Amino acid sequence: MTEHIVKSFDTELQRLDGEIQRMGEIAVAQLEAAMDVLQRRDSQAAQRVVANDDAIDALEHEVGHDVLQLLALRQPMARDLREVYAALRISSDIERIGDYAANVAKRSMVLNQMPVVPAGRGLPALARLAGSLVSEALEAYRLRDADRAMAVRGRDAELDAEYTGLFRELLTYMAEDPRQITACTHLLFIAKNIERIGDHATNIAENTWFLVHGEPPATEREKRDRTSEQA
Amino acid sequence: MTEHIVKSFDTELQRLDGEIQRMGEIAVAQLEAAMDVLQRRDSQAAQRVVANDDAIDALEHEVGHDVLQLLALRQPMARDLREVYAALRISSDIERIGDYAANVAKRSMVLNQMPVVPAGRGLPALARLAGSLVSEALEAYRLRDADRAMAVRGRDAELDAEYTGLFRELLTYMAEDPRQITACTHLLFIAKNIERIGDHATNIAENTWFLVHGEPPATEREKRDRTSEQA
Repeated sequence: MTEHIVKSFDTELQRLDGEIQRMGEIAVAQLEAAMDVLQRRDSQAAQRVVANDDAIDALEHEVGHDVLQLLALRQPMARDLREVYAALRISSDIERIGDYAANVAKRSMVLNQMPVVPAGRGLPALARLAGSLVSEALEAYRLRDADRAMAVRGRDAELDAEYTGLFRELLTYMAEDPRQITACTHLLFIAKNIERIGDHATNIAENTWFLVHGEPPATEREKRDRTSEQA
Repeated sequence: MTEHIVKSFDTELQRLDGEIQRMGEIAVAQLEAAMDVLQRRDSQAAQRVVANDDAIDALEHEVGHDVLQLLALRQPMARDLREVYAALRISSDIERIGDYAANVAKRSMVLNQMPVVPAGRGLPALARLAGSLVSEALEAYRLRDADRAMAVRGRDAELDAEYTGLFRELLTYMAEDPRQITACTHLLFIAKNIERIGDHATNIAENTWFLVHGEPPATEREKRDRTSEQA
């Protein structure tokens, strides 16, 4: 055995892949944990979720660092270059997903200072759907399966429909009981965070498509949050 | 004159720079236009602002394309590589800023279907501050002036303080007049969009710092939206 093993480009790419899969797993777990502490009204655990976001940020820095090294030392071309490019973009989407999950946990701490509002009942289902979109997008990326990735985009429309329903429901609650306005506003922002997580899952899917095919997916996705267009 | 002029790396970098400056100018103009149509309650003009966002998206694609070409053909190292990396990241921040501006315009159309609410009076000042942060961050990037870039980060704290004040004001309005809840919710989301634009200005500033110094700025910035921590 030689002490120094010359690593192949593939090995380094696998390393990058591993970092991204780890980032993705943490982000999905963070979303689940955030929803869990929200429902259990556990501010101490929420604090830990907020603190854990650092792990995702650190991994994003690592990916950025590795990408720069890889570009400088390996000078990849064509598909290899797209691999590196996609890794960079996808890591940035996962970082945003982590931020949104942390923001859910942060808002849960504010909600714990107020009486329980029943209006947030639709949130766990919304978050489960968003989490499954992220997992599915990451799995499609891991397999470099462009068609599977594109299925995520379709399912994001479901998420947006659910979000829109929840948005209206929360507005109704607020009108019926103005004492719940502050709490419901935080629930609205939590719902919006979850909806945005779905958008980033779609971004991951689109970057996977680009990685495989060398061009962006043909049809522009529709803008999905229709609450910004509706009264 | 020869017909084919071999372009230097610097020339290509200048082209990239030009694309980003153009993206940035459009994004700032889009924010101003969005605030203008919001105040004038002009849904037709708002529709144009929403449509104009495509120009920014197209430029982001161009930057991405040019970056990949530059990496493949020029194989830049060290500072040159960071130039390309920063261009990619900054273009993605500008694209997000454009999205937020378009979302403001979209929500203004919903608001035009409702009676005027006086609660949004603080928004223009908030948007002016956010726009000036973006312009300042882009100017610092253009000059590759890391210290000037870091001043943007400090001023983002001002924006966050203003946002927090506006957030509370809007909640108060909603409690006082529940008929305005839907309108005020859209104003809340508009305020949040503007606050997020400030975050992206800070990202541009931090990427400028990294580009110049080869490492991220020392002190982590504080999380700025304190409304997610407060009742």
